[in-house]
Amino acid sequence: MQYPQPIAKLIEGFTYLPGIGPKTATRLAFHILDMKEDDVLSFAKALVHAKRDLTYCTRCHHITDTDPCYVCEDMKRDQTTICVVQEVRDLIAMEKMREYTGLYHVLHGAISPMDGIGPEDIKVVELIKRLQEDDNKQEVIIATNPTIEGEATAMYISRLLKPTGIKVTRLAHGLPVGGDLEYADEMTLSKAIEGRREI
Amino acid sequence: MQYPQPIAKLIEGFTYLPGIGPKTATRLAFHILDMKEDDVLSFAKALVHAKRDLTYCTRCHHITDTDPCYVCEDMKRDQTTICVVQEVRDLIAMEKMREYTGLYHVLHGAISPMDGIGPEDIKVVELIKRLQEDDNKQEVIIATNPTIEGEATAMYISRLLKPTGIKVTRLAHGLPVGGDLEYADEMTLSKAIEGRREI
Repeated sequence: MQYPQPIAKLIEGFTYLPGIGPKTATRLAFHILDMKEDDVLSFAKALVHAKRDLTYCTRCHHITDTDPCYVCEDMKRDQTTICVVQEVRDLIAMEKMREYTGLYHVLHGAISPMDGIGPEDIKVVELIKRLQEDDNKQEVIIATNPTIEGEATAMYISRLLKPTGIKVTRLAHGLPVGGDLEYADEMTLSKAIEGRREI
Repeated sequence: MQYPQPIAKLIEGFTYLPGIGPKTATRLAFHILDMKEDDVLSFAKALVHAKRDLTYCTRCHHITDTDPCYVCEDMKRDQTTICVVQEVRDLIAMEKMREYTGLYHVLHGAISPMDGIGPEDIKVVELIKRLQEDDNKQEVIIATNPTIEGEATAMYISRLLKPTGIKVTRLAHGLPVGGDLEYADEMTLSKAIEGRREI
């Protein structure tokens, strides 16, 4: 016989999480046994609440517990600009910067024919609709990742938006701040040269 | 503003687990959002049940949901031998081997003056009491880890038990099966030479 049923179940639960194998799951489960009961209870509640209370904002598709979400509802933000990102985490990264004050649109993915992900699998149609319904939008900043999939998605969206006359911009490519020229890849260097500015 | 409250709480909950930093916690929390609600519920329940239903066996200090635990209760096991291990996980490792049929005693630690852990902090007194109360025990196998702390604990226990006349043994040291002589450290090699047997 192996572990008693309650801990065996807990270990199994942990192994369903990404990047957690049986060894780590066992370590985590034993840690739970050593935690205070209140802490375990509130962790369990946090799990259930996060799953039950969170949905996606019907406007920008950010995760939220209110609809529309806190970003869309904030009338102090610049209502004329939309920043298009791939994932909710990218939105959070933009927010951490504290410089961008416009709205967002989360695509929940990028076009990737290799993985069978087409434009219909991400929130592109929703973006177009949103722009059609609301004619005060002046700029769409495409902040998809600087990867093949991200670039393809950016190109696809910019072509779709061309006829509408809305200004479409893309985040600048170049050397990351604090990076080392020596270790920059050729593509990044070439983009950095291409996008050089007078100082 | 950052993440909505429910997911921020969940991320925080994950960061309390060992070896999980903010980045991994965020990844895990987003994975929870993508899981089926039933799976999240049963994981949350497993957490609470494990914490609430599991105690330590009053005889051998193994984790258990019954007292005495399933090992102590199994009368088919050899009641005359006790294997002393540091942690519950070590007991499970011994059980996986399926060769040892005696009882166990879990110390829940090892003597380590560097970390301020003395004999009174681990279940040594309980072991001595258990042996005094029950005079059919014939052998104590000390299976603490082959580390400084484990060795110190083994020495300490064997000296304590010497006057009782009970046979005290220690797991063999030597080369691990499948290991490579070239990569064995000197201590292991020296122990392997010392413990050599005729074939």
